[in-house]
Amino acid sequence: MPHLSDHVVAVLDRPSMAMPARLYRLAEVLLIIAGSGAMMINTLRDATAWQRQACSAVLITILTLFMLDFALRIWLAPALAQRLGKDPCDAPRRRSLTSLSGILDLLSVVPIAMTAPLYWTPNGAPLLACLWLLRLARYSSGPHMLITVLVRERAAILGLLLLFVFVLVLASILAFLAENKAQPNAFSSVVDALWWTITTLTTTGYGDRVPVTAFGKILGGCVMIGGIILFALLAGLLATSFAAEMRRRDFLQSWDMLARVPFFHEAGPATIADLAAILRPRDLPARAAVTRRGQPGDCMYFIVSGEVEILVEPRSVRLGPGQFFGEVALLTGAPRNATAITTKATELLVLDIADFRSLAASRPELTDLIRREAERRLGQGVAVASRPKVEPAPQDPRPLPG
Amino acid sequence: MPHLSDHVVAVLDRPSMAMPARLYRLAEVLLIIAGSGAMMINTLRDATAWQRQACSAVLITILTLFMLDFALRIWLAPALAQRLGKDPCDAPRRRSLTSLSGILDLLSVVPIAMTAPLYWTPNGAPLLACLWLLRLARYSSGPHMLITVLVRERAAILGLLLLFVFVLVLASILAFLAENKAQPNAFSSVVDALWWTITTLTTTGYGDRVPVTAFGKILGGCVMIGGIILFALLAGLLATSFAAEMRRRDFLQSWDMLARVPFFHEAGPATIADLAAILRPRDLPARAAVTRRGQPGDCMYFIVSGEVEILVEPRSVRLGPGQFFGEVALLTGAPRNATAITTKATELLVLDIADFRSLAASRPELTDLIRREAERRLGQGVAVASRPKVEPAPQDPRPLPG
Amino acid sequence: MPHLSDHVVAVLDRPSMAMPARLYRLAEVLLIIAGSGAMMINTLRDATAWQRQACSAVLITILTLFMLDFALRIWLAPALAQRLGKDPCDAPRRRSLTSLSGILDLLSVVPIAMTAPLYWTPNGAPLLACLWLLRLARYSSGPHMLITVLVRERAAILGLLLLFVFVLVLASILAFLAENKAQPNAFSSVVDALWWTITTLTTTGYGDRVPVTAFGKILGGCVMIGGIILFALLAGLLATSFAAEMRRRDFLQSWDMLARVPFFHEAGPATIADLAAILRPRDLPARAAVTRRGQPGDCMYFIVSGEVEILVEPRSVRLGPGQFFGEVALLTGAPRNATAITTKATELLVLDIADFRSLAASRPELTDLIRREAERRLGQGVAVASRPKVEPAPQDPRPLPG
Amino acid sequence: MPHLSDHVVAVLDRPSMAMPARLYRLAEVLLIIAGSGAMMINTLRDATAWQRQACSAVLITILTLFMLDFALRIWLAPALAQRLGKDPCDAPRRRSLTSLSGILDLLSVVPIAMTAPLYWTPNGAPLLACLWLLRLARYSSGPHMLITVLVRERAAILGLLLLFVFVLVLASILAFLAENKAQPNAFSSVVDALWWTITTLTTTGYGDRVPVTAFGKILGGCVMIGGIILFALLAGLLATSFAAEMRRRDFLQSWDMLARVPFFHEAGPATIADLAAILRPRDLPARAAVTRRGQPGDCMYFIVSGEVEILVEPRSVRLGPGQFFGEVALLTGAPRNATAITTKATELLVLDIADFRSLAASRPELTDLIRREAERRLGQGVAVASRPKVEPAPQDPRPLPG
Repeated sequence: MPHLSDHVVAVLDRPSMAMPARLYRLAEVLLIIAGSGAMMINTLRDATAWQRQACSAVLITILTLFMLDFALRIWLAPALAQRLGKDPCDAPRRRSLTSLSGILDLLSVVPIAMTAPLYWTPNGAPLLACLWLLRLARYSSGPHMLITVLVRERAAILGLLLLFVFVLVLASILAFLAENKAQPNAFSSVVDALWWTITTLTTTGYGDRVPVTAFGKILGGCVMIGGIILFALLAGLLATSFAAEMRRRDFLQSWDMLARVPFFHEAGPATIADLAAILRPRDLPARAAVTRRGQPGDCMYFIVSGEVEILVEPRSVRLGPGQFFGEVALLTGAPRNATAITTKATELLVLDIADFRSLAASRPELTDLIRREAERRLGQGVAVASRPKVEPAPQDPRPLPG
Repeated sequence: MPHLSDHVVAVLDRPSMAMPARLYRLAEVLLIIAGSGAMMINTLRDATAWQRQACSAVLITILTLFMLDFALRIWLAPALAQRLGKDPCDAPRRRSLTSLSGILDLLSVVPIAMTAPLYWTPNGAPLLACLWLLRLARYSSGPHMLITVLVRERAAILGLLLLFVFVLVLASILAFLAENKAQPNAFSSVVDALWWTITTLTTTGYGDRVPVTAFGKILGGCVMIGGIILFALLAGLLATSFAAEMRRRDFLQSWDMLARVPFFHEAGPATIADLAAILRPRDLPARAAVTRRGQPGDCMYFIVSGEVEILVEPRSVRLGPGQFFGEVALLTGAPRNATAITTKATELLVLDIADFRSLAASRPELTDLIRREAERRLGQGVAVASRPKVEPAPQDPRPLPG
Repeated sequence: MPHLSDHVVAVLDRPSMAMPARLYRLAEVLLIIAGSGAMMINTLRDATAWQRQACSAVLITILTLFMLDFALRIWLAPALAQRLGKDPCDAPRRRSLTSLSGILDLLSVVPIAMTAPLYWTPNGAPLLACLWLLRLARYSSGPHMLITVLVRERAAILGLLLLFVFVLVLASILAFLAENKAQPNAFSSVVDALWWTITTLTTTGYGDRVPVTAFGKILGGCVMIGGIILFALLAGLLATSFAAEMRRRDFLQSWDMLARVPFFHEAGPATIADLAAILRPRDLPARAAVTRRGQPGDCMYFIVSGEVEILVEPRSVRLGPGQFFGEVALLTGAPRNATAITTKATELLVLDIADFRSLAASRPELTDLIRREAERRLGQGVAVASRPKVEPAPQDPRPLPG
Repeated sequence: MPHLSDHVVAVLDRPSMAMPARLYRLAEVLLIIAGSGAMMINTLRDATAWQRQACSAVLITILTLFMLDFALRIWLAPALAQRLGKDPCDAPRRRSLTSLSGILDLLSVVPIAMTAPLYWTPNGAPLLACLWLLRLARYSSGPHMLITVLVRERAAILGLLLLFVFVLVLASILAFLAENKAQPNAFSSVVDALWWTITTLTTTGYGDRVPVTAFGKILGGCVMIGGIILFALLAGLLATSFAAEMRRRDFLQSWDMLARVPFFHEAGPATIADLAAILRPRDLPARAAVTRRGQPGDCMYFIVSGEVEILVEPRSVRLGPGQFFGEVALLTGAPRNATAITTKATELLVLDIADFRSLAASRPELTDLIRREAERRLGQGVAVASRPKVEPAPQDPRPLPG
């Protein structure tokens, strides 16, 4: 049975780009969505008995599947660790349990199973199923980056929150003083006024409490404008920092990939840093089309790992790590003359035409390198993924203005 | 009848800047607006019979006109393709049908015509007329760029949406637990609470469901603030990426135009890339005034295609592609001394005075080039579109501080 | 009476920084505010007869004053034009009437005076008094820059508005289909639904129309999120462009001022462009304190026009255009050792300490220039507005790390 | 008793990073929160007598403690001034009273104590306790920076506010004209309409006043969109300026710290300015872990002041001001091989891995400096806080691509 176990490991392998693992992850996401939906529908007061039973069945099924997944991951932890290139002697089962991913798996199984007796009544709803949503955190860098940003900007955020609290309390006291006489029920205390102030400061405006006195209305207008300004500052701060953090992460990811492509070692470190800032990584599974014949060519590709097959008429060509394709479209402006398809899971770095133009001006040596390589390949009869339309690029050393 | 057909082709030609084609496009936009209005008014419960008949007449007229337009476009596809410089032997009719533009035309005609029997009752409203709005997509790069941005930032957007869904579900469960006892009708289930949460998270705040318990109110405040932060991150991300995409597109457009102006070939590729980042393209129809005598001069113009007539007193001068005008205003600060008018559809590149000043510092060779060209022209007696006021620019080699 | 007329001209002169002209402008702003307030109070249903009479009196007074101002401006137009250095023979009265400023003055006087008979009833309110607010446009570059931004980004804005209209109409039709059965009054037609859609898309959320069906609520959630995204794109676009426009205007203003300071001619054009991007202009009236003794020094000042008096103990020094002060605080980090006061209306350029540090790294020749000038002045016994605390700057050629 | 007084001074010292002073500041923040809470609860109409007494007790306790703190600060002002390195002969008591901090302390004690007789009734609530929140301003640079931004951008903000007022008044008049007939109570005057306009313009949308006429609804839609655009401009402007101000302050802080590290004097001023823009300062108390063994290493640290102990197996090493650690993780990509712990309050400058990579490209001399220093230390047998995993960095002169 080692063969089956190998298959299971390949399916469970989370970073894998192979099709079975991708389908398994898709199924997990669908199960989570179905489970959350069932949990919510289960709380509907006017749900029929049949609907409740269906929801319960869905919830039990999903819980069972997640338990199975969890057990398999613990059991196969050594093999999974080996696939990721980790040291197998390093207690993989314990490490798998104590890793963030393991804790998420545990949280989505144990609490809901333990509290099952409590809600297994006709009207009970396993609200803890919302813990399943935590599993999604694995597929997203959003929460992680948001936390990084919050930590990095904590000083400024605290400053703004403090300002926010001060405005909140001050406005509540003033609203209480202004409206208490006119509306003794709606503004019966500063705590009551606080609720009005926060709905107004965030411009939510439920309308359950509305100032009626002249001073209360002037105060309301000031609170609205102040709220917009305060939250604009907070939002601008977080958005700027979040965008910078994303650029930083993309830069690192591109840099790590670039460092594995020998072609760029010629280009010098300054060019590599420039490239890392503009290249965008792209992961593709096997049998995915990268370019299609006849489409306009607005970028070129560098292969980091995997393999791409260029389907040119006489024969097709396979390009491996360190090679690039699609550059003729950028040099001549013609549409693609060949379809490029990945033969296995492939990592690419994409260079946009606008960035290529900028780069050609600031780092002419790089464009020359690409042009020379294209010439060399054409001299060897190797087809490239675009066809010159008006004139062949290699013959004319300066078809571009410069 | 070939002459008439030629006229029709000229009118139908979508990228054309000629006046008949522009008027035809304007008429199309007005028809779409009129049609949408008629469709809406037709649904009014208290509309009179007369109003309904008028709306129906408008809708039928517009549908007929769009059918005619569609038929003409298919019939004249070969001639239209030829105008755009495409290969006429390449099945233009089929291509015209299967292009995005052809599909939009088809969608605005066929579905509404097919469903006509269904709504041709006194109270029926052809709601499918909203498909006509799709025709507008042709005149706007907004939807296309938004899709590009959504695709490019899909990882970050998915991450934020996931965080959003998690907050949404968690807050709904907590709101349900907090408010269910106090307001069994408003918060009867988690699904009900979900509606409250989403109106609060987006700070819409209808006020149809409002928390009344202390914990519900604290939760509401947190949801409001969390919503502002989450959407600020999403908004900041999209806005930044959208702005970058627009810069990128403008850069490419300017670069493509610059590459057609021989004047810049002297300037070197780095200067061209710098220029492409700051020049703004401007399309003008024939007989449009570019500059007016006596107005302040805050930019200069490079002609990419078409022709501009400079109306100087003794005689007027015509400038063609590759020439520039309006530079003396930037060199001397004087108001325009001549009116410039296009004689045919003209593409210009506009260089703002602030960018000219920056450029003069970072790329002095370009300003020298412009200055020398201006001197040369003045030497030949060719008038330029501004007059030096205090001192003549060419005589003094350094009138600017540097 | 020529002397009186001269005084009046000096008071009416709008760009003047002299105290009487500033007070006159302040009075104008206060009158506009008072007039707008009186106009509004006049519409209150429960206003007493006394209040109405007071409001009418205020409105008549303001109208009379603005008429007088308008007449004086036309009568004194030649003298005013002369003050601004314009050609007096160039029909100043007609020009003053047809200028933007003249039209604003006309609009704030003629329509309200012409319609006076209509509202001069006990309950009539001269709503046209809102035209007085237009006069404020003169004191703000906001509206002008907003228009520039809207024109410059018109393509992208149109694209987004089109997308907005499409979403609006589509969502209205869907909301009508979803809610018409359940709420035949609230969603009686697509036009009705349109009102719900726009209040939801802008997240205003009045709550006068709220979806009750499941599909209507899902649609509502999507419209809210879509609205946030659409307006975020619009807002991000406008804010980015507005900020760029402001930087551009500040750059030009600083550049124009720098070009008048001989000191910078030594520094070369690249340094001037760098400086123009970071220096902030500051207009001060006479007798304003620029620095105060003992305060921390976080910037230095270049004088463009006017005069500054440095109050040092033994004797005070007067510095004129082209000179700078406050640099020792930046070189040594010590607090100001002297108070600097303007003796007349003065234009300054302010260099912040953080920008000074950056500049010292990228353009060391400029800091050297400032250091040498400071040394030279100290050698001549001229006091500068800060005192070295730990060690004297000139003796040590490199007190900063580099 | 001098020993006790020394302890008290150490605790009261506000900038101190020592543990007792930090705990004292934390206690102050908690007291302020408790006080604000008690003040609010005291206003609840349905609070029991017991709750009111508890709140009063809390408020009196806090007031007494703040009085004691204030008295101690005045009494110990000379010793506190001495700790901060200020001149002791310079009237520290008077200065302490007139400083911003002293005024905040005074405000949080005197007004509430003076008005005590007024509210010391069973139902009275000492609303002036909101002044305690002002004490928090000391711990936040938010308010200070917000004021700086508002002052710097006052011209643009005034311009936008003016536009805002104009739109507000104009829309109010139009709404009054449109809705007065249909809803004579809700839109009884322009002042009434103003309240509707401001809730709509800020997209708060209480829903207490909603237009019902067709023109009123079209106006409402325009006001919503206009409000979003106006506030987007204001928000974008403030957020941009606030972010720039924060960068500027961080740059200055880093620059001041860098200027105290001799290591960087070799690197030249341009490198220092580059570094100041990317290094982030970090203050740590004693006994805080900076890095932990086995964690991924994504940054390196420069010590500005204080001391860090590197816990390597054979023996531990102490690094002082001017030294750095954690660089091997950046050079090799391996996880940390040592835990680093501060031995006293320490100021660090953090260099992120992404910034290190960019810097290595633009300023290779700096990375060389760090590499050489690491080699030298390894040669001396001094352990550094990361261990090379694949190959030792020093032996291979170019392990990075360049």
